[in-house]
Amino acid sequence: MSKKVLIVGGVAGGASAAARLRRLDEHADIILFEKGPYISFANCGLPYYIGGAINDRERLLVQTPKGMADRFRIDVRTRSEVISIDPQRRTVQVQSGERGLYEESYDELILSPGARPVVPDVPGADHPLIHTVRNIPDIDRIKEQVSPGGGKSAIVIGGGFIGVEMAENLKEAGLDVTLVEGNAQLLAPFDPELAAILAQEMEQRGVRLLFSQRVQGFRSVGAGIGVELPGNRVLTADLVILAIGVKPDTAFLAASGLELGPRGHIVVNEALETSAPHVYAVGDAIEVADYVHGTRTAVPLAGPANKQGRIAADRIAGLNSTYRGTMGTAVIKVFDLTGASVGSSEKTLKRLGVPYRSVIVHPSSHASYYPGSSAITLKLLFAPEGKVLGAQAVGYAGVEKRIDDIAVAIHFGGQVQDLTELELSYAPPFSSAKDPVNMAGYAADNILSGRVRSFSYDQLADRRPERSVLLDVRSELEHAGGHIPGSISIPVDELRDRLGELDPALEVWVYCQVGLRGYTASQILRQHGFDARNLSGGYKTYRQAAF
Amino acid sequence: MSKKVLIVGGVAGGASAAARLRRLDEHADIILFEKGPYISFANCGLPYYIGGAINDRERLLVQTPKGMADRFRIDVRTRSEVISIDPQRRTVQVQSGERGLYEESYDELILSPGARPVVPDVPGADHPLIHTVRNIPDIDRIKEQVSPGGGKSAIVIGGGFIGVEMAENLKEAGLDVTLVEGNAQLLAPFDPELAAILAQEMEQRGVRLLFSQRVQGFRSVGAGIGVELPGNRVLTADLVILAIGVKPDTAFLAASGLELGPRGHIVVNEALETSAPHVYAVGDAIEVADYVHGTRTAVPLAGPANKQGRIAADRIAGLNSTYRGTMGTAVIKVFDLTGASVGSSEKTLKRLGVPYRSVIVHPSSHASYYPGSSAITLKLLFAPEGKVLGAQAVGYAGVEKRIDDIAVAIHFGGQVQDLTELELSYAPPFSSAKDPVNMAGYAADNILSGRVRSFSYDQLADRRPERSVLLDVRSELEHAGGHIPGSISIPVDELRDRLGELDPALEVWVYCQVGLRGYTASQILRQHGFDARNLSGGYKTYRQAAF
Ligand SMILES: Cc1cc2nc3c(=O)[nH]c(=O)nc-3n(C[C@H](O)[C@H](O)[C@H](O)COP(=O)(O)OP(=O)(O)OC[C@H]3O[C@@H](n4cnc5c(N)ncnc54)[C@H](O)[C@@H]3O)c2cc1C
Ligand SMILES: Cc1cc2nc3c(=O)[nH]c(=O)nc-3n(C[C@H](O)[C@H](O)[C@H](O)COP(=O)(O)OP(=O)(O)OC[C@H]3O[C@@H](n4cnc5c(N)ncnc54)[C@H](O)[C@@H]3O)c2cc1C
Ligand SMILES: CC(C)(COP(=O)(O)OP(=O)(O)OC[C@H]1O[C@@H](n2cnc3c(N)ncnc32)[C@H](O)[C@@H]1OP(=O)(O)O)[C@@H](O)C(=O)NCCC(=O)NCCS
Ligand SMILES: CC(C)(COP(=O)(O)OP(=O)(O)OC[C@H]1O[C@@H](n2cnc3c(N)ncnc32)[C@H](O)[C@@H]1OP(=O)(O)O)[C@@H](O)C(=O)NCCC(=O)NCCS
Repeated sequence: MSKKVLIVGGVAGGASAAARLRRLDEHADIILFEKGPYISFANCGLPYYIGGAINDRERLLVQTPKGMADRFRIDVRTRSEVISIDPQRRTVQVQSGERGLYEESYDELILSPGARPVVPDVPGADHPLIHTVRNIPDIDRIKEQVSPGGGKSAIVIGGGFIGVEMAENLKEAGLDVTLVEGNAQLLAPFDPELAAILAQEMEQRGVRLLFSQRVQGFRSVGAGIGVELPGNRVLTADLVILAIGVKPDTAFLAASGLELGPRGHIVVNEALETSAPHVYAVGDAIEVADYVHGTRTAVPLAGPANKQGRIAADRIAGLNSTYRGTMGTAVIKVFDLTGASVGSSEKTLKRLGVPYRSVIVHPSSHASYYPGSSAITLKLLFAPEGKVLGAQAVGYAGVEKRIDDIAVAIHFGGQVQDLTELELSYAPPFSSAKDPVNMAGYAADNILSGRVRSFSYDQLADRRPERSVLLDVRSELEHAGGHIPGSISIPVDELRDRLGELDPALEVWVYCQVGLRGYTASQILRQHGFDARNLSGGYKTYRQAAF
Repeated sequence: MSKKVLIVGGVAGGASAAARLRRLDEHADIILFEKGPYISFANCGLPYYIGGAINDRERLLVQTPKGMADRFRIDVRTRSEVISIDPQRRTVQVQSGERGLYEESYDELILSPGARPVVPDVPGADHPLIHTVRNIPDIDRIKEQVSPGGGKSAIVIGGGFIGVEMAENLKEAGLDVTLVEGNAQLLAPFDPELAAILAQEMEQRGVRLLFSQRVQGFRSVGAGIGVELPGNRVLTADLVILAIGVKPDTAFLAASGLELGPRGHIVVNEALETSAPHVYAVGDAIEVADYVHGTRTAVPLAGPANKQGRIAADRIAGLNSTYRGTMGTAVIKVFDLTGASVGSSEKTLKRLGVPYRSVIVHPSSHASYYPGSSAITLKLLFAPEGKVLGAQAVGYAGVEKRIDDIAVAIHFGGQVQDLTELELSYAPPFSSAKDPVNMAGYAADNILSGRVRSFSYDQLADRRPERSVLLDVRSELEHAGGHIPGSISIPVDELRDRLGELDPALEVWVYCQVGLRGYTASQILRQHGFDARNLSGGYKTYRQAAF
């Protein structure tokens, strides 16, 4: 007899599971429930429909109920909310616009309900000029407001991926945009010195940024909306986008007996089985293993959701696929810049108490003698034993390529040593003979082996001037153009002849522009008996972080 | 006492070794011998200086003897050819423009003499209008000939990386260009159906291509040069670029007693030690292990040369670095297209007699609903047990990124299963939730598991029409617009209702445009008892290969 499989949620995880399951099992009965009016839409494309990069609304609909029926014989039921599940009786309760309340039984059940935007518990949070961004109806409402004759100014609350993308796209749509962020930096997966580069790009492109401001409430101001900040400050605009994070859309499971995590995520094992037999869960609604540390985490991204949907279908069809965890590989376009990250940030490692080392390099996106190259700021985090723990990069080109390479290395438990060995494709328009990933590996390897001692820009505060000298080894011209206060100048190429100017009793804190000359200088100094260390990422990182 | 280290060859491998060695050892005596007038030049940039993308000749000089002296205290001796080495006495003989013939002793010796262009043994091969492309003097001579008032037409002999780059750049410089290739395809690392895409781009951009033509000789024709082809055919032009391959520049080692390989490459172990104590060798001149198969090979590429140079320096400084082999990761720009490859091609696997499977997919460079995406043709080669053996890709964007991802996977001995799991960064401007690499993994995994049977375009010739039906499952419109001769049309979405039209006694050879609908159709058919198989890469690959 054919299996009856119900799927809750018709977008990334749910639709992927449905399509895969049909390919594996031509005879299953597959019913897909979606509470909204659309399935299979491009959540990730929604912001770009506001900015106009995607100007045909139809393009957001990757698949339709008719398409799913014709190609895959999926019984797609939109405007059909599953309001409860009963794993004992193997049934779900459905509230349908068309058919009212009814029950449906299952042999197997896949839950992919996703996550919903968090709404803060402050006065006025239900104001009609506040919008969240999850689906097509949301974006239709926003589009209407920003169309010619609509809103002229917007406040985006929250500087995560969705907030930053919305701010960029509202700006592209011609609005006056302010972004308010509760923390001291944008885009939490990045460490502050890299996030600062992206923040600077936003300001340069005209987005006003307010950091460390938690919203106290909302109220009407004329025909617009006022956002109340601490200290009785009120910002006003024609509309507000609320993007302070998401939480699993799992309220309908409250009475199901399914094990949920502390923040409401569905708990699953590597087979994506929940605590109830025959019930699988995938996507933004589940807790997963952190791929690097094995701890529990939740990462609301489309790649994992799609992959998990496919795996749940595999399991139901009797295949042995498993999901081993999420490393949070992510990328964002911020106007002309790209930021990408994978694995743990330095902040996360500190929080987890995991020992680590880090290095920052600024290699060229491709051979600098070939036109059009630009610098990539690449930060690598690694264990004192060499295992790669994470990486972040910001730049104009080739950024996500390098993060993906490192993501593949992390997948295999790769070491810094592996990064030095990777054979990546090289011709002048594409890379350098030593690819930026190799370069990060080299610099990290030098630190690991103890050949070089490095310090980071935020450790400059710890320097004791009476015990040390701060040495700028760039050219005199560069030094004159701007330097770290308190530093003296000896260009690296003159250093061997001018060692006498340095007091061997003092530590030498060396820096150059990006870290490379400083490294060479610190090698010279150490081999002449000095206690030298080099500023990771150089003056460039020092300046970037100062934003 | 400080070590005395001699280095032969002052470019990719040699200069990298020198710089690294100085950073590791401030006190070594390092002498670098280079027979040409320049060191540290951008070999790989030479063609682009002809085309004009690089228009400042100075940019080709990445480092200078003065720079190496100031920064690294390297004693650089240009126009100094090492004409023999004596590993017993630990000396080399140097022929210097300035200093005449002299001997220099060493504690350690690094050989990085590179490879020289092959010149065929045919009449007229020394004709003054024939140029090879290895170094700055070569490119100066060519530049002079193609400058305004210089050559108006060129014939490039050889369709390898350098030949294709030179043809493109001569075309960019405004010349009329013909490329003559001895084999039936360009760019040997690619299989014919992918090389054909690149060849088509060249023809569309106005480069005339002649395949399977071996040059018989050269002779003067008026003020120009005639290239003699089989059948008394003579092509004439103002200049000829000869780029039929390279051979190790190791003639000076003939009397050294060093073990050389069958084609003159220096034999080294994983420590890059030659057969003589204290003599290391790196770069284009050495034989290395094929990273995938462990066989001996020689891969003249800059990434390996630079890495090996660094490793040789490490060994001399007492570090334990090793070189584990080369997988031949390479990339080339062909006008607007990019081609990249890694590991083994299908041709190579056939030649080696290694069992393999393959699949071709044509995914989008990034989400197709976001503007500017284009298709990548990606071919994956893998063992019947799942190990990834190689990959090739051609397209307009994101090509080398995917090949690099696969190169990293190959570095770790990755399986097809790993490719399905890789968590690569995704946002609409950069990729899809299922990255092209995941997609190739999925398609390969379906073949490995036996869920789908596939056939390749060149197996169409084996189809027995009396035993099989060729089924086009694209739309009727697509079928009408062009199809494989002998195929019937049933669109995939109608297939379930029209199964009765197919004879269950016949094999069904299914195809669609790229392979995806054909896969879905073949799943439907197989689960209804048909013996179905799907054309890998679909009609698109069939057409591409037909070029
Ligand atoms: C604006 C935006 C931009 C994004 N950009 C990116 C990006 O660039 N890269 C990236 O990796 N990720 C991005 N994401 C995240 C990505 O879209 C999600 O990770 C992914 O869609 C999660 O898939 P899912 O199946 O778990 O949930 P969803 O795709 O959200 O699908 C869940 C569906 O289930 C429905 N549902 C919920 N409960 C019920 C119920 N009880 N009954 C019936 N139906 C129900 C919901 O209506 C919803 O349509 C973005 C998300 C948004 C909102
Ligand atoms: C036109 C061109 C384009 C290329 N494009 C690419 C590319 O896009 N990507 C890529 O990966 N690779 C490319 N390569 C290949 C790359 O340049 C080589 O792999 C790399 O330079 C090899 O380094 P090497 O040190 O072994 O040899 P080389 O860089 O060639 O250096 C060897 C040097 O040794 C000198 N020498 C030889 N014998 C003696 C002697 N007896 N005494 C003193 N000196 C001696 C030679 O004059 C030469 O300058 C290209 C090469 C060329 C010519
Ligand atoms: C549209 C949607 C239903 C497609 O699901 P899907 O059919 O599984 O996915 P794709 O169209 O990418 O096809 C993937 C399948 O094609 C196969 N395939 C792709 N190219 C192929 C080729 N050339 N030859 C053979 N097979 C191929 C893959 O193997 C895979 O099949 P498998 O899973 O059975 O192994 C689902 O992805 C969706 O709803 N997407 C929109 C929502 C979303 O993802 N949002 C978040 C991102 S914005
Ligand atoms: C120019 C040349 C001499 C440079 O050699 P090099 O100094 O080893 O190479 P780079 O300038 O790339 O610097 C690499 C070093 O800087 C270090 N480094 C780079 N960025 C750093 C940073 N931000 N902080 C600290 N260290 C850094 C690396 O760790 C590496 O040092 P290591 O090898 O001791 O670990 C050599 O590459 C060359 O001759 N190139 C031209 C020829 C050529 O390669 N041709 C083929 C390609 S066209």
